[in-house]
Amino acid sequence: MTMPHLAVIVGSNRRDSINRKLADALVRLGAEKFDAGFTRIDDLPMYNQDLEGNLPAEVARFKNEITRADGILILTPEHDRSIPAVLKNAVDWGARPYGRNSWAGKPAFITGTSPGAIGSALAQQHLRSVMTGLGMILLGGEAYITFKPSLLDEEGNIGDESTRKFLAGFIDRFADLITRLSQSQTERSAA
Amino acid sequence: MTMPHLAVIVGSNRRDSINRKLADALVRLGAEKFDAGFTRIDDLPMYNQDLEGNLPAEVARFKNEITRADGILILTPEHDRSIPAVLKNAVDWGARPYGRNSWAGKPAFITGTSPGAIGSALAQQHLRSVMTGLGMILLGGEAYITFKPSLLDEEGNIGDESTRKFLAGFIDRFADLITRLSQSQTERSAA
Amino acid sequence: MTMPHLAVIVGSNRRDSINRKLADALVRLGAEKFDAGFTRIDDLPMYNQDLEGNLPAEVARFKNEITRADGILILTPEHDRSIPAVLKNAVDWGARPYGRNSWAGKPAFITGTSPGAIGSALAQQHLRSVMTGLGMILLGGEAYITFKPSLLDEEGNIGDESTRKFLAGFIDRFADLITRLSQSQTERSAA
Amino acid sequence: MTMPHLAVIVGSNRRDSINRKLADALVRLGAEKFDAGFTRIDDLPMYNQDLEGNLPAEVARFKNEITRADGILILTPEHDRSIPAVLKNAVDWGARPYGRNSWAGKPAFITGTSPGAIGSALAQQHLRSVMTGLGMILLGGEAYITFKPSLLDEEGNIGDESTRKFLAGFIDRFADLITRLSQSQTERSAA
Repeated sequence: MTMPHLAVIVGSNRRDSINRKLADALVRLGAEKFDAGFTRIDDLPMYNQDLEGNLPAEVARFKNEITRADGILILTPEHDRSIPAVLKNAVDWGARPYGRNSWAGKPAFITGTSPGAIGSALAQQHLRSVMTGLGMILLGGEAYITFKPSLLDEEGNIGDESTRKFLAGFIDRFADLITRLSQSQTERSAA
Repeated sequence: MTMPHLAVIVGSNRRDSINRKLADALVRLGAEKFDAGFTRIDDLPMYNQDLEGNLPAEVARFKNEITRADGILILTPEHDRSIPAVLKNAVDWGARPYGRNSWAGKPAFITGTSPGAIGSALAQQHLRSVMTGLGMILLGGEAYITFKPSLLDEEGNIGDESTRKFLAGFIDRFADLITRLSQSQTERSAA
Repeated sequence: MTMPHLAVIVGSNRRDSINRKLADALVRLGAEKFDAGFTRIDDLPMYNQDLEGNLPAEVARFKNEITRADGILILTPEHDRSIPAVLKNAVDWGARPYGRNSWAGKPAFITGTSPGAIGSALAQQHLRSVMTGLGMILLGGEAYITFKPSLLDEEGNIGDESTRKFLAGFIDRFADLITRLSQSQTERSAA
Repeated sequence: MTMPHLAVIVGSNRRDSINRKLADALVRLGAEKFDAGFTRIDDLPMYNQDLEGNLPAEVARFKNEITRADGILILTPEHDRSIPAVLKNAVDWGARPYGRNSWAGKPAFITGTSPGAIGSALAQQHLRSVMTGLGMILLGGEAYITFKPSLLDEEGNIGDESTRKFLAGFIDRFADLITRLSQSQTERSAA
């Protein structure tokens, strides 16, 4: 049986994004459960309904990567207590044009890190309500990771033992959710 | 194979609740998919952490009904653009005491009706963010039902053809979600 | 000139509520700016539209206290990432019956404390969206106070110097907002 | 006395934006109360913290227009139940760099129109929670305008009598709010 394919989206366009670093660490943490690939969003043009008639190549590429994935891992920083513009832009392109919503039915694990104590809680809350509305099946529970230098070790793995266990629990549950949701009706009837 | 058991929660304590009527209609619509029972919430005392040491009998009964259910159907009106107090109270009791969260891992379908054109959209949005935070697995998509007299026929079934089809689609997807999530690991490995 | 009258609402019914303690400290901090009185909410019956025809005495008392106030100070804990049921209940009674919304036009300062690092951020966010929808004029800015024993000194005043300055800034801006909003058109034309 | 200056922001980059049309109509409706100018947002580069060291000229222009305004009128469509990316981008640039938040203390009237029955309710709810967090003083109440061809007449004015009265009420209250908030302490003491 092949491993489920994960599209990884980092909601930041900074060169030294801490969410990108956390994403790298999560991908390694789940290396035996997922085949993961990063899906670029910082090259998408600003969403404009006028562009829908002739989808820009970057948008077509992006939507195709979402469609092909068995699950989506989204890491979001918090910008002004909500979703960063660069990520909201990707969300909007994924949902459009009308009738071509690439998100529907996809299982997703939403997490993220921020330097402040509030972590990315408020951004995640807005993102969750948007994504369930778009038909995604969200992994339950909350993973708000406060960023501090000790979070990652020198190899870029999650250095803190309790955080690693905490996140490994999410990875396990996410792998299970994807397997359950992606199994075909036929396979299940055969059980 | 037995049908999955559904706990049905109506977020209104009005005698003539339109959400209760819609709940009745939904239960009939899904009669071949679910074994459904209403879970009362209007007899729960107002949540108070001081009561946690010795759970009131109504709370113990309520939490037990949630725990035993394979899935939860929640119908919510909108009170002041958010969750009605009587429903938020049930949510809080379900989540507590610390370590005894009855909602975690349960699949849920959140819907509701309101007279206004905005339906129960804003209430559902707050409820979704609360419930995914508590670890529920929410059925994707949005079902905001605007209440008008023609919604239900004389037998209390959904009278409008397109609304019935729309809601039947949610029922089918919800039944599938529950089956996939409740299947044991063993059953799946055997497939 | 008389000091503006503040109705203080604590969104907790616990005996040893930390939000109640913070409220006490805030009232003392603003003693030269406001004449403050606590408005009880834990004796209100659960909101039920069926009770609107004949408002319970506690509800009439509550709505009267809101109506008479020049400003409202609300302290909210966070229950399951949203507004506690006991507070949502007070919000709903304040807004009803239809046409008798007691909140409209009132300036409000929303704050609160929670033990966790996320403070009461998510509860405040839901409460803000509800309260602006009900026509309140909210003091801008965010005051999420993380509760730790050192927050209050032995007299119950805010013990931490930087937190005291931070909150004193809100008190000053709130007093200014109330004064500006409560000044009659006549007084302003005379300026 | 000079009229207060309004910066008008339309949260859409479509050529035939219905929110732009509604904005035009609102500006005319308030012509005796405000001196209004449109503030362009569709030329702002995607927010990126790496660009903060040397603010792009369009961003500097944008922030300057916000800073100079006495009040902000924001019209937002709803994209996927939240703030459109092009508007969230403007919000984020307005708030940054750290310490140079252009929104703080500004009075704002948030409204918008959408074709669907839910209007722009969910977008406005997210926007309100973001903007109060950034220190804006929001006009209380909700103006969710459902767009239909009859909304505007041939001259582009609000054609429907009841909608015009409804929105004129917001305009009046907004003018009053701006006047009260912008009046200097000195003027008020002199009253």
